[in-house]
Amino acid sequence: MAKRAVYELYYWPGIQGRGEFVRLAFEEAGVPYLDLGRLPRSRGGGVAAIERMLDGSRPGLTPLGPPFLRHGQIVIAQTAAILLYVAPRLLLVPTGEPSRLRAHQIELTIADLVAEVHQTHHPIASSLYYEEQKEEAVRCARAFIAERIAKYCTYFDRAFDSNPAGKGRWLVGSKLSYPDLSLFQVVAGLRYAFPSAMRRIERRFPRIVRLHDAVAQRANIATYLASSRRIPFNESGIFRHYPELDHMGRGG
Amino acid sequence: MAKRAVYELYYWPGIQGRGEFVRLAFEEAGVPYLDLGRLPRSRGGGVAAIERMLDGSRPGLTPLGPPFLRHGQIVIAQTAAILLYVAPRLLLVPTGEPSRLRAHQIELTIADLVAEVHQTHHPIASSLYYEEQKEEAVRCARAFIAERIAKYCTYFDRAFDSNPAGKGRWLVGSKLSYPDLSLFQVVAGLRYAFPSAMRRIERRFPRIVRLHDAVAQRANIATYLASSRRIPFNESGIFRHYPELDHMGRGG
Repeated sequence: MAKRAVYELYYWPGIQGRGEFVRLAFEEAGVPYLDLGRLPRSRGGGVAAIERMLDGSRPGLTPLGPPFLRHGQIVIAQTAAILLYVAPRLLLVPTGEPSRLRAHQIELTIADLVAEVHQTHHPIASSLYYEEQKEEAVRCARAFIAERIAKYCTYFDRAFDSNPAGKGRWLVGSKLSYPDLSLFQVVAGLRYAFPSAMRRIERRFPRIVRLHDAVAQRANIATYLASSRRIPFNESGIFRHYPELDHMGRGG
Repeated sequence: MAKRAVYELYYWPGIQGRGEFVRLAFEEAGVPYLDLGRLPRSRGGGVAAIERMLDGSRPGLTPLGPPFLRHGQIVIAQTAAILLYVAPRLLLVPTGEPSRLRAHQIELTIADLVAEVHQTHHPIASSLYYEEQKEEAVRCARAFIAERIAKYCTYFDRAFDSNPAGKGRWLVGSKLSYPDLSLFQVVAGLRYAFPSAMRRIERRFPRIVRLHDAVAQRANIATYLASSRRIPFNESGIFRHYPELDHMGRGG
């Protein structure tokens, strides 16, 4: 039964956000999914559909927030857990516990990076506007650029080393898997948010740049990126371009 | 072979930190483990042992940082991934994909909460001292106490509702599982860090308080908590008591 069920992604409309990591998996696999938040209310979509799932009135574990995925009877929250669940079904991860643990660890580390990126523009509270914490954001972004981007990139770069089957091209096994898609998204996002800083830092990590380019050129991903389904980066999402945060100083 | 291997936890000595969620699982299960960071250098332990695993010279995925677990040929980083791996082996999670996904989602949500707690005292940068970001921490903690603690507690409280087998006592299935241990740790940590705020907030969540007490009274956990293996909370860990952060204002 669950095999016939439609994949329903619940995520805020209007931003890539954490939902984008899930979207990229479905797009690469060419497997249909409903992006509920972006469907009209008349088709059961929109923010109201998300909020109904969060009000605690449904059976099953109520997520703290989006993204979450409904697939038959199962509702899964947490980006990395969603990918842990769908990736084997979408053939986006090798079989076997070691490969799956490897992929999941990389994805969780990407999730940590994403949380730190969010913190650069919201260091004090998610509930406050950026303008209410701008000075603090400037300090936070300075440290993030100086210390954290290169640290994470070193982690990803070493992941190539420890995956001989990937020949420096893929993070897990001998072909593309879902952490490759997520790393593409991180590179694209960091370039959007911190173009000056990233230009300087990414030079030191040519394999990461090559992975980004290889993912962007996959047939299904290229089609997706050119489509209206790909929401442009903007200043409501996680990767935001505020020029005052794109420090040029020494980094990593 | 892996079944005979010793579990080796690598975590900074001197703090509970994220390592504590892993320690609690081994302690409850009564399964021996080595806490490498706390072993003397003469037995291959200490900070040097952790740093050797992080320098990128070993085969396998190099973690971004501790905690990580070595078990035979496998090295796993990321607290929630470590627990995903060990819990079935320690009989700390029911069998079946739905239960395991449920437990993992709860654990990942706890990880998010832990990251937010860390942010309350380090809103600008982990690399700066608390004293260098104290004013910002005061603002951050105020929002965390007013908005976030009750939000997370509501999430955990609803998890009881959606687990009828647990009868309001356990989060997953009909008996204790690893997210129960982790929620115990979160309650203990929040009480340590924000005693005034927690006293007020936890009144609204009697099932969470009861879970905390039930875990503390488990035979193996009670023995552990009374032992020197349990490192006291302190101001180098994640849950830190700085009186100026324990706001008394309205909350949640």
